[in-house]
Amino acid sequence: MPKISKKGHHMPSSPIRKLVPYAEQATKEGKTVYYLNIGQPDIKTPQVALDAITNTTLDILAYSRSEGSETYRQKIADYYAKNDISVNHDDIIVTTGGSEALLFAFGSIMDVDDEIIIPEPFYANYNGFSASSGVKVVPVVSKIEDNFALPPIEDFETLISSKTKAILICNPGNPTGYLYSKDEIKKLAALVKKHDLFLIADEVYREFVYDGVSHYSILQEHGLQEHAIVIDSVSKRYSMCGARIGYLVSKNKTLIATALKFAQARLSPPTLAQIASEAALDTPDSYFKEVNEEYVNRRNTLIRELEKIEGVKVAKPNGAFYCIAQLPIKNSDKFAQWLLEHFSVDNETVMVAPAAGFYSSPNIGLNQIRIAYVLKEERLIKAVNIIAEALKTYKD
Amino acid sequence: MPKISKKGHHMPSSPIRKLVPYAEQATKEGKTVYYLNIGQPDIKTPQVALDAITNTTLDILAYSRSEGSETYRQKIADYYAKNDISVNHDDIIVTTGGSEALLFAFGSIMDVDDEIIIPEPFYANYNGFSASSGVKVVPVVSKIEDNFALPPIEDFETLISSKTKAILICNPGNPTGYLYSKDEIKKLAALVKKHDLFLIADEVYREFVYDGVSHYSILQEHGLQEHAIVIDSVSKRYSMCGARIGYLVSKNKTLIATALKFAQARLSPPTLAQIASEAALDTPDSYFKEVNEEYVNRRNTLIRELEKIEGVKVAKPNGAFYCIAQLPIKNSDKFAQWLLEHFSVDNETVMVAPAAGFYSSPNIGLNQIRIAYVLKEERLIKAVNIIAEALKTYKD
Repeated sequence: MPKISKKGHHMPSSPIRKLVPYAEQATKEGKTVYYLNIGQPDIKTPQVALDAITNTTLDILAYSRSEGSETYRQKIADYYAKNDISVNHDDIIVTTGGSEALLFAFGSIMDVDDEIIIPEPFYANYNGFSASSGVKVVPVVSKIEDNFALPPIEDFETLISSKTKAILICNPGNPTGYLYSKDEIKKLAALVKKHDLFLIADEVYREFVYDGVSHYSILQEHGLQEHAIVIDSVSKRYSMCGARIGYLVSKNKTLIATALKFAQARLSPPTLAQIASEAALDTPDSYFKEVNEEYVNRRNTLIRELEKIEGVKVAKPNGAFYCIAQLPIKNSDKFAQWLLEHFSVDNETVMVAPAAGFYSSPNIGLNQIRIAYVLKEERLIKAVNIIAEALKTYKD
Repeated sequence: MPKISKKGHHMPSSPIRKLVPYAEQATKEGKTVYYLNIGQPDIKTPQVALDAITNTTLDILAYSRSEGSETYRQKIADYYAKNDISVNHDDIIVTTGGSEALLFAFGSIMDVDDEIIIPEPFYANYNGFSASSGVKVVPVVSKIEDNFALPPIEDFETLISSKTKAILICNPGNPTGYLYSKDEIKKLAALVKKHDLFLIADEVYREFVYDGVSHYSILQEHGLQEHAIVIDSVSKRYSMCGARIGYLVSKNKTLIATALKFAQARLSPPTLAQIASEAALDTPDSYFKEVNEEYVNRRNTLIRELEKIEGVKVAKPNGAFYCIAQLPIKNSDKFAQWLLEHFSVDNETVMVAPAAGFYSSPNIGLNQIRIAYVLKEERLIKAVNIIAEALKTYKD
């Protein structure tokens, strides 16, 4: 039998998906499962986007341009202008989800064995994109005690080698919900300029910021034009995860020209989804106001309920719709599986994401879980109650 | 300024896209351009697929499963069964176009510096996927004199090294239109079994076969289960290039499990396009009959008109909708550009794809062009007439 690749062996399995069989078994046994493990919001897609789909009059579903349709990229540039970010349509490549934007960025700036520094815990699929690009993730630890703020710049400095090509942040963060301050971004900007690195910011949650603080994009930072690469996506912003439309944005012309070659090889991003995504840019501001109010309420409820549980420590998120909770247990992998297999309250249980998968360093975060507050408040209350009851019985 | 990657430098530009600015200039100057350069058919997408889009009642455009929806994969398996290919739904991963299926296959079976043997001329983007995967294409030359039939097996044997991991064919071929015979497939099957290699067949044009010959899939070959990987796509079959839905099919469980990890990292293929593609499987047989009749007529017209031109040699295709023509010139790159910039008949000109981009060996095919017969007959006649007139004047 011919052998699969080393790369294939090293590709990580998703930390979330490996629990799916247990969840499926639980539902087969008649248990209700509250899914706090995935970032699939229950928020309705904006009506303008749905209408654009059902009103389509295409009779040939043809390729678009590799970099995305001209009109769509122009409207994206207008969106950024409204958000105090000055980019042109030709600074933007439309990609098949933020995932592909990351792959194009990695491919354009790193070769095999190059290194990328990422504050951990980080979005687990960064490991997959790194493995498939053959590059090495060098983690720098951020701490629950600090609410997962930016680690000291000295911690980055000690990790920078001749192989380091970039620093990657997610802002606001999945899985931490932490929103980097303008000051933290300025520190990172100075660092990447000093060492001539790229700074990649995954800003897909940029509109999900709470408590009156505002998001400061790396594209707003002066003098960072040649270094800054933004990853963006319609997935969460318009609850259109299944569209698979994202973008790579940079003022660095060489970077964009290189990423375009990767884009041309795969021909084009999906046409129907671009139509829906272009229409989504006309979503009224009231939609975002309502959605953000909903998430703030959910977050407040979630944190309040979690803090009632003895021994639980929670980082308070200012953005996105995730939080990391530290539990009085040893191994959240086993706990998450046990919840699905062996525990229920009134025949209901909970699926959470063990946080170890969001760390690259071994043996960190083993007692932490990520909770996505993508369910309505009354369901969140029930779900947290199940965790509280479970912790009374669970032994690891 | 931080540097881009070596890989990025080596990514090939598309052999077709580099002529686009000249075509845009020509149309700006008021010239009509007949586009024979791209595989974007003018055939209407089946009505059942279009209806599935406009009738959608989704209110959240959510992720699908990473491997594609269960019902869709089941229906794909039924489609293969109807075509005498026995696969289960879990032998199939739905991908974002055939492009992504190729990337997953390359990633799953090859590491950096590994080699893949491909008969040339071949689909130009195989170079892009190889460059982005860091693997080396080893070309084996097929000849216009042989109609681009399979090169002798000895030619493959001499190229196989310890780094060779796979042989890739496109059947029927883009850009050659050549349909491999059952006998040729059996020879390749024996070869990959002997050397324990994978055999990847890009069968996206499997339904476009003419003259009463039939397509023999590598999945029909007994004893090849662990070696065979099929790349498929809805793009051409249903004139849905913009859907970006393809599939990777294999009975090799380890391969599928590995490819699934790549699929999970990018979350899911596009949801709307899957809905349209699932519906497209109900396209009536009459649609394919009409489409194939149309292509046969176009091909016959194209070949007849090309053969009228002195000094032109044409390989006669049995499948797909491309053919390679050899012209009495030295450099088809320059000829193609000159056609757009400096030539017209009644203010009309033609865009063709220079064939050099479909070869990996240097200095082969320089006097060849690829013609996609994706236009109606009367337009093909006009287009070939323009080439005939051009050849009377052109000096290189």
